[in-house]
Amino acid sequence: MKAVIIHAAKDLRVEERDVDAPGAGQVRIAIGTGGICGSDLHYYNHGGFGAVRVKHPMVLGHEVAGTVTDLGTGVTGLAAGDRVAVSPSLPCNQCEYCLKGQQNHCLDMRFYGSAMRMPHVDGAFRQDLVAEASQCHKLAEGVSLAEGAFAEPFAVTLHAMNRAGSLLGKRVLITGSGPIGALAAMAARVHGAREIVVTDILDGPLAYARLAGADRTINSARNPEALAGLAAGKGTMDVMFEASGNAAALATGLAALRPRSALVQLGLGGDIALPQNVVVGKEIEIRGSFRFHEEFALAVDLINQRRVDVRVLLSDTYGVDDAVAAFERASDRAHSMKVQLAF
Amino acid sequence: MKAVIIHAAKDLRVEERDVDAPGAGQVRIAIGTGGICGSDLHYYNHGGFGAVRVKHPMVLGHEVAGTVTDLGTGVTGLAAGDRVAVSPSLPCNQCEYCLKGQQNHCLDMRFYGSAMRMPHVDGAFRQDLVAEASQCHKLAEGVSLAEGAFAEPFAVTLHAMNRAGSLLGKRVLITGSGPIGALAAMAARVHGAREIVVTDILDGPLAYARLAGADRTINSARNPEALAGLAAGKGTMDVMFEASGNAAALATGLAALRPRSALVQLGLGGDIALPQNVVVGKEIEIRGSFRFHEEFALAVDLINQRRVDVRVLLSDTYGVDDAVAAFERASDRAHSMKVQLAF
Amino acid sequence: MKAVIIHAAKDLRVEERDVDAPGAGQVRIAIGTGGICGSDLHYYNHGGFGAVRVKHPMVLGHEVAGTVTDLGTGVTGLAAGDRVAVSPSLPCNQCEYCLKGQQNHCLDMRFYGSAMRMPHVDGAFRQDLVAEASQCHKLAEGVSLAEGAFAEPFAVTLHAMNRAGSLLGKRVLITGSGPIGALAAMAARVHGAREIVVTDILDGPLAYARLAGADRTINSARNPEALAGLAAGKGTMDVMFEASGNAAALATGLAALRPRSALVQLGLGGDIALPQNVVVGKEIEIRGSFRFHEEFALAVDLINQRRVDVRVLLSDTYGVDDAVAAFERASDRAHSMKVQLAF
Amino acid sequence: MKAVIIHAAKDLRVEERDVDAPGAGQVRIAIGTGGICGSDLHYYNHGGFGAVRVKHPMVLGHEVAGTVTDLGTGVTGLAAGDRVAVSPSLPCNQCEYCLKGQQNHCLDMRFYGSAMRMPHVDGAFRQDLVAEASQCHKLAEGVSLAEGAFAEPFAVTLHAMNRAGSLLGKRVLITGSGPIGALAAMAARVHGAREIVVTDILDGPLAYARLAGADRTINSARNPEALAGLAAGKGTMDVMFEASGNAAALATGLAALRPRSALVQLGLGGDIALPQNVVVGKEIEIRGSFRFHEEFALAVDLINQRRVDVRVLLSDTYGVDDAVAAFERASDRAHSMKVQLAF
Repeated sequence: MKAVIIHAAKDLRVEERDVDAPGAGQVRIAIGTGGICGSDLHYYNHGGFGAVRVKHPMVLGHEVAGTVTDLGTGVTGLAAGDRVAVSPSLPCNQCEYCLKGQQNHCLDMRFYGSAMRMPHVDGAFRQDLVAEASQCHKLAEGVSLAEGAFAEPFAVTLHAMNRAGSLLGKRVLITGSGPIGALAAMAARVHGAREIVVTDILDGPLAYARLAGADRTINSARNPEALAGLAAGKGTMDVMFEASGNAAALATGLAALRPRSALVQLGLGGDIALPQNVVVGKEIEIRGSFRFHEEFALAVDLINQRRVDVRVLLSDTYGVDDAVAAFERASDRAHSMKVQLAF
Repeated sequence: MKAVIIHAAKDLRVEERDVDAPGAGQVRIAIGTGGICGSDLHYYNHGGFGAVRVKHPMVLGHEVAGTVTDLGTGVTGLAAGDRVAVSPSLPCNQCEYCLKGQQNHCLDMRFYGSAMRMPHVDGAFRQDLVAEASQCHKLAEGVSLAEGAFAEPFAVTLHAMNRAGSLLGKRVLITGSGPIGALAAMAARVHGAREIVVTDILDGPLAYARLAGADRTINSARNPEALAGLAAGKGTMDVMFEASGNAAALATGLAALRPRSALVQLGLGGDIALPQNVVVGKEIEIRGSFRFHEEFALAVDLINQRRVDVRVLLSDTYGVDDAVAAFERASDRAHSMKVQLAF
Repeated sequence: MKAVIIHAAKDLRVEERDVDAPGAGQVRIAIGTGGICGSDLHYYNHGGFGAVRVKHPMVLGHEVAGTVTDLGTGVTGLAAGDRVAVSPSLPCNQCEYCLKGQQNHCLDMRFYGSAMRMPHVDGAFRQDLVAEASQCHKLAEGVSLAEGAFAEPFAVTLHAMNRAGSLLGKRVLITGSGPIGALAAMAARVHGAREIVVTDILDGPLAYARLAGADRTINSARNPEALAGLAAGKGTMDVMFEASGNAAALATGLAALRPRSALVQLGLGGDIALPQNVVVGKEIEIRGSFRFHEEFALAVDLINQRRVDVRVLLSDTYGVDDAVAAFERASDRAHSMKVQLAF
Repeated sequence: MKAVIIHAAKDLRVEERDVDAPGAGQVRIAIGTGGICGSDLHYYNHGGFGAVRVKHPMVLGHEVAGTVTDLGTGVTGLAAGDRVAVSPSLPCNQCEYCLKGQQNHCLDMRFYGSAMRMPHVDGAFRQDLVAEASQCHKLAEGVSLAEGAFAEPFAVTLHAMNRAGSLLGKRVLITGSGPIGALAAMAARVHGAREIVVTDILDGPLAYARLAGADRTINSARNPEALAGLAAGKGTMDVMFEASGNAAALATGLAALRPRSALVQLGLGGDIALPQNVVVGKEIEIRGSFRFHEEFALAVDLINQRRVDVRVLLSDTYGVDDAVAAFERASDRAHSMKVQLAF
């Protein structure tokens, strides 16, 4: 079977790998669709991010859906032919954080396509995957594998909603309109947001934000006055989701927030300049949001019920043999939104 | 009467001012003691901080206690001779933030000795002060005016405790052992902290932290290994109070915090470097803490009941005529903790 | 002008009253529609509830919408001809609870058509009403006065949502499918509920619950097994809104709730039997929910945007002269849902 | 070895039982002290409570401390001779509630001396106990086994504090001054309560409450006016811990609470009358509190540091052979507080 393997920055190869057999409690899945994520792009373009570097070849990918082909012993609730979204997250369920219900901080986490530990954990951009049955969430009839492959990034944004708390009646600012920002707009709407404003420095992504349900979009590069307008008084926005990792977005967002607001940080920008006096003077709460846990099942539910229609965010699909072209396309955020591979 | 007036950076003068008469609902107070605060020092040393600059002569001071001498009409509950701590905070109680119970974000706040608005609001480093009766909180018998003048900075730290939420069973890290950091140690002990660790780059302030009840102090300049020890695993501390405004303190503190911890930011450091990936990866919550509201009355209560003994933090007392010397002494944090003026 | 006045239990009269002129900051409104609320019915059927009794004739009604006809001095943002929903709530904005942002607990509240204070506060079932401009919330074009008159009860349910906290991903149980229960289903959907189950002892109201968006309804009188099914394991529901005031509904709901769930109590049942051991053993949180404050504006917003369509809950409309017939109809919950008066 | 075994109501026997050997990860403990708990008394006086009935002979007891005598294989951190408090709680750490950090709601909980499951789980009133090493918490030098045996009920009250949230600046009402109420007073003081008022219908227990740190006690039978005074305005107390399971205590407490207050329910009273209109009108939050989890370790810490001195609550100690007399004494709450057995 073919797998998409990162060797080093700009060295991505489609290679043959052996097929595994499912063990007890496991299933084998013919992967149909895989979405390219920002972290995949970091491995591809830079060989990693921060202290996390690719140190040996690793299969990439953690946004996948496919069709169950074989069942290991003891698997119930799944059958060959079932179409499933596969969660890339395998917490140990034994460490102190798992036993506090904080599985996303598991001390022994295995997460697909991540170089955080040695040896790295291989990802799911492969034609054939063996996974725990508990990772597999059935897709409803009429819901495509392409939609199912959105479950993972959508779960990331649902976790961010949980970090934010209730949005009922809240005016929501989202900075950065990549796939995470746009999916956050969908999630905020499901979660009861009163108004959703999305900013970016490019018009292309903002068009997708509007498709995702944003009430208003602002190109912060071309229209800084509109941004400044959000900062009237002590600020006009109630909650912010920062999905760019950009210092300017953080600063303008802080100016736009009302006192005691929550700013949920999703984007990863390394060491960035924080206007500490604003955080103190307005008593802002900056809350990091990292991956997800129970939100994966919720993401599949909401997609299955079509309470969100993630299809509007799919910009491009490439065959697995064109993986390099797909990664290049996904790196061009002016012209693409979510790029998927078909296996 | 004499008042302590800032004209510009390093231009502090003791000048004569007229005495006012108390209006309806007001009292006149013979100020006995005034504590010098970090913001007073910013005005003295730098003419302000950030965008807040002294633009005309202003009486300094907002940590004061004194004796009621005259009552305006309609004042109840106070009598001449009462010894009181005076809150420097006068929210409008009419704006949208006051009507949400967020008086410290009042859109029309009058706060003693602050250049935030024009004209500036005069402070309370003066022999004779007219204040609203509602600002005055009676001191218990046997509690000195010097203790009463600690109510204001202690209230600042109690507000930070409220921002942190319950400390029951929590291991608390305090970075920066100035008067706010040391009072935060006292407040954290009252609030049920399990263990309190205070860090600073100087030994002098850390000795005061121990007097304030810290279980352990670390000189982060001389003993970086001890700090690094706090970062074992994914971190060992449950809550942090950042009272230095220093980027290194923020970074080492973030490393020491466990996932999902709260970091309450009290110190003002301007634009500082934030390790955003740590905030996201560990889902830290950074919460600004600004001044106080109902905590002033609580501070007086706790001082009156001697559930805290703030006297251990008083390092120096100067007569009002030696105000410049007092400000110089207070600026030397290696050798002083709280410096007070006697009027 | 005509007004609907309660004199005693079963003594409701339509009488002539003088028209007032709007003072400074006030407007005069030609009331178009008024919805009959459960508390109106208590006055009509029983002369009050609990300790609250009608002690002198009082105009009833607090769910109204109308058209502005005259403006007092100093009114901005409103014009004659504006169609508005009118909030019946006038907190003092000066007492300790108002200054904590808890206006629904105001110590000097004036609430339309309530006998809680002496003399009682007259209500808004009248052809001509003078109100504060701040009570008036404009209806969007195309939104009817009948819809506007739903703003008040819908605000009650939005407040209950705020009491519940985030519903994202939650399975919601609503007991009692009167207008409050049915509107709570709408509110829960807006607020992100994953699944909504509504129970009642009558089929008629449950049909309305389904129109309101309930995923599932259970007639608890005819189908107790379905209710029992909700209690599988330690319970299957995550949040409950109790809108019946009935002890059996409370008990079966507690059985259906998972440990650590919130039960928001809206219904008023007097002294009722509480299974305390279940509350303790499952650590349930029972939270009272009383009226609303800022949720009124949100209710109008959501109705204006048609993010809810309250029209499906309007069962009957009567002319003001048929007020008694309207109250009788509204008292027959097997055959009516929301009954409105047209003025 | 001797064990204290309940056969039926009023049929408590001291019988010989075989000694077990510690398996892997286990230790053998010579139990020194065991405190009699209210649930023990329910088994003794009534054969159980609610649906929980003794169906076969069961060793009672879950508040114990002793000395380690033997170690099973693989035990680290403990040595023969260590004096330990033993947690009676053994959650499975695998079910859905354990993996949410809600171990006290474990679906497969084993709790010492509880008839909740069949066969019942034997308790620890025995001279020789084999337990998991993880259940054992070392006592500090100078801390007695009698103090150690308070860790369990103290943990129950610490969990109640966690359920209440921050107590900083709060006025706390505790209804019921048995061992749980009195320990709750100690816990509330550690947790920062501003004022602690304890009520009971007997003077004897109230004397212990004062020893435990209550600022004020009220005999609600002899002094109902004092209770009524707490209800001034909309109430004067901020948080309540209900430790009596009594309907009158619940009702008077609800009257004393301010709007939006939390009432933490510890006492078990079966089906009791709840003034629902007060819960709704004042938006009270009633929160059940059940057992504890991580609070056991905290309880031992606080006892070890002598931040609480539980010794003041020990009223009587009996030898194991006098277990029946001890249970009779403990049932006489007018004249005893905590009664312990010495093994």
